[in-house]
Amino acid sequence: MRNLSMMTDYYQLSMMKGYLESGVHEDEVVFDLFFRKNPFHNSFTIVAGMESLIDYINGLSFTEDDLKYLASVGFDKVFLEHLRAFRFTGDIWGVAEGTIMFPHEPVIRVKASIFQAQLIETALLNIINFQSLIATKAARICEAAQGDPVFEFGLRRAQGPDAGIYGARAAYIGGCVSTSNVLAGKLYGIPVVGTHAHSWVQKFETELDAFRAYASSYPENCLLLVDTFNTIESGIPNAITVFRELQEKGFKPKGIRIDSGDIAYLSKVARRMLDDAGFPNTAIVASSDLDEDTIDSLKVQGAMITHWGVGTNLITSSNWPALGGVYKLAAAAESGALVPKIKISDNPEKITNPGLKKVTRIYDESGLFALADLIMLADETIDTSEPLTIFHPIYTWKTKTFRRYSLRELLEPLYLNGKLVYERRTVQEVRANVRRELDGLWPEYKRLQRPQIYKVDLSKKLWDLKHQMMLAHKE
Amino acid sequence: MRNLSMMTDYYQLSMMKGYLESGVHEDEVVFDLFFRKNPFHNSFTIVAGMESLIDYINGLSFTEDDLKYLASVGFDKVFLEHLRAFRFTGDIWGVAEGTIMFPHEPVIRVKASIFQAQLIETALLNIINFQSLIATKAARICEAAQGDPVFEFGLRRAQGPDAGIYGARAAYIGGCVSTSNVLAGKLYGIPVVGTHAHSWVQKFETELDAFRAYASSYPENCLLLVDTFNTIESGIPNAITVFRELQEKGFKPKGIRIDSGDIAYLSKVARRMLDDAGFPNTAIVASSDLDEDTIDSLKVQGAMITHWGVGTNLITSSNWPALGGVYKLAAAAESGALVPKIKISDNPEKITNPGLKKVTRIYDESGLFALADLIMLADETIDTSEPLTIFHPIYTWKTKTFRRYSLRELLEPLYLNGKLVYERRTVQEVRANVRRELDGLWPEYKRLQRPQIYKVDLSKKLWDLKHQMMLAHKE
Repeated sequence: MRNLSMMTDYYQLSMMKGYLESGVHEDEVVFDLFFRKNPFHNSFTIVAGMESLIDYINGLSFTEDDLKYLASVGFDKVFLEHLRAFRFTGDIWGVAEGTIMFPHEPVIRVKASIFQAQLIETALLNIINFQSLIATKAARICEAAQGDPVFEFGLRRAQGPDAGIYGARAAYIGGCVSTSNVLAGKLYGIPVVGTHAHSWVQKFETELDAFRAYASSYPENCLLLVDTFNTIESGIPNAITVFRELQEKGFKPKGIRIDSGDIAYLSKVARRMLDDAGFPNTAIVASSDLDEDTIDSLKVQGAMITHWGVGTNLITSSNWPALGGVYKLAAAAESGALVPKIKISDNPEKITNPGLKKVTRIYDESGLFALADLIMLADETIDTSEPLTIFHPIYTWKTKTFRRYSLRELLEPLYLNGKLVYERRTVQEVRANVRRELDGLWPEYKRLQRPQIYKVDLSKKLWDLKHQMMLAHKE
Repeated sequence: MRNLSMMTDYYQLSMMKGYLESGVHEDEVVFDLFFRKNPFHNSFTIVAGMESLIDYINGLSFTEDDLKYLASVGFDKVFLEHLRAFRFTGDIWGVAEGTIMFPHEPVIRVKASIFQAQLIETALLNIINFQSLIATKAARICEAAQGDPVFEFGLRRAQGPDAGIYGARAAYIGGCVSTSNVLAGKLYGIPVVGTHAHSWVQKFETELDAFRAYASSYPENCLLLVDTFNTIESGIPNAITVFRELQEKGFKPKGIRIDSGDIAYLSKVARRMLDDAGFPNTAIVASSDLDEDTIDSLKVQGAMITHWGVGTNLITSSNWPALGGVYKLAAAAESGALVPKIKISDNPEKITNPGLKKVTRIYDESGLFALADLIMLADETIDTSEPLTIFHPIYTWKTKTFRRYSLRELLEPLYLNGKLVYERRTVQEVRANVRRELDGLWPEYKRLQRPQIYKVDLSKKLWDLKHQMMLAHKE
């Protein structure tokens, strides 16, 4: 990964310079990175991006060229000397990549000097926001496909190269089985697939010539795009001709792809034509502006599609193109001790949770199914031999008591005193983690429309602290 | 720019290998890159990305590491030798970056061996799609702001680092006056701006302390964020206190920023409070999920905002997150001569225009205002001493005759025989080009809602060719 130290908002630098001049730049602070809303009215978000985050933090340092530029836009020598010496020496805690998280829960927690913690805000948000968004979108699309393989196809419509690359990675960890992006395949070991485009068919004198040429190069992997001219009248009949020729030579044809038209109808006709011709096991791949809603609807309509190629709507998360992650100050050192900090707002959703916090997930006795989460102060403990009662943070009379349960703390250290302590995982491991996380959620949380809302409560101690601070601000 | 040679769809490689094995890989072909629809129901699209495209083409070559990976996923030695030797040696024509273009017009035209032309499809689409989208979105937002400065603020919500960087560049060429993205500022010389966040205010014991500290570091550029606790009751009064202190020291305070709440109401109250306090020339910057529709509505409501900070909705183009650019085969060599090619579809919008083409823009006599465009075959000429009659490509009885007019051909060579011949332009030059292009469009084409549709017709010769090919395919 290239050096992205300069990929920050200008105001981070102007604040850093201001902190330096106010003599508070070395004060320790705590920032929480969290989101306020699940995308897509989903009930959860799959958090991704930890690997990129680590590449970014590891690479943090300013080049002479960077400093020269910053001098040219008016930063003074004293400040630039501090940037020249910049190394990240703080603590970062975060959830394991691929963990399912919910609104208001810290997914990354930074404890560092305010000079350091402020610089990294922008890049952390950029990384976590996008990758979590795409992983979550992919999970929804795979949920709609009900176990059918979903191919990620979106590179050409991605918002730039990185979006194509990190998007392919996020889509794979979210459940897709492959990507069309060769570079992402190389970088992460994601399976890459793809056959041919309309241009292949146009290049040859006839569609049949084109299919024969393709079959000759790919006798064992012959998947033909049948909609260049007319799907039913020429594409499928020509494909069947070539499949028969392949079969005579002892090869098993793979199937067809349909990229336009009424996919529900065409797939049913295609299935019947292929079955009647003696190819009942061939694949029918569909790819045409698909998303979870269209796939869901095609399933309901009985479309005979076996594999789904999803492009634009996945790679751009078109109906919800940004996860609104934020990075908010939760505590700051005053005379050496961390003091909780709060941001007040007329909008109750926007009032932050103060203090150094952790997130505890409550499981059923078996440890298999997640029941609820608790946001707590970091120094709190729970005695699991006692019943545990939690309460809704707004409708506080709504309580729930767990008698037999187990707990898991979700935040783990990524960096301690600037040293990387997180064991880096392969994309395959992260993908498996997502699978486990999804398996630990009841189906009611996973349905696409109006899912059950997962309980995320505050500990009594945190709730009291927050309310006391809100009241103090009122005065 | 890093080497993105591997950033292609897998099917490009599988087709390239197939072309090689079919012995047609050196056949010359023509591909058009175009879009079928303007984004946002806008009447035009500002085409951007040429600089990235040139970086990409210049960098095209496969490393040993790339070839090793491709061997591992099954590509054979003969094919890999061809990739090892890969250099782009074809022609690429395109419009000058920042040109306003319309649906179905080739914005890039590639003439190269099919082996080469196929490889570059994905990257070209990725680059042009995103950058054109954001430049166009920025132009709409600036149109809504009616000349007020618009700041690009979106890096933290961009779809990865590249989206933040290229998005900032595209937003600037589309009309924004600055970006918050320091890296984009460094790379392209875009003005960078930014002041402070809520965290700055939280870090100090009181808001007033925080404002004083900020004013002490930035006495000449003191713009204060006033909504951390309560905009009207504490933020603005504290800002006024600090502004008075600054004024006593001989400094001119810059203004305030409002990032939440009812911006229309708050900006009016803020204006009155600042005016009453003797600061009528201070800025009121608004930034809170803005887009062209919200800005338009705030203008209608009489909001007293002087500067607009736009983030998420600009950098992700949230309501239309992908320009659906495509890359379609228009001609292919058969026995040495280029033969026009067509892609048929039930959907008339999806039928391609065959042949090697160019785009001619018809201006009024003064050469200032664009009147209509003609997509023509490349070898056609127009005698401007004669009247010019064009006709609608569907409703062919709709004609228009120009008697006094001037012409401009929009496609210019970027590469000839693999050699770069395009004179590279600075971002500032591209931005100026966008301004000129916008000035050459009547306001009716630029309004945000239901703009007039700009005429794009086919030449008689191209229209005849297309219809003859469509009829031939019917048989």
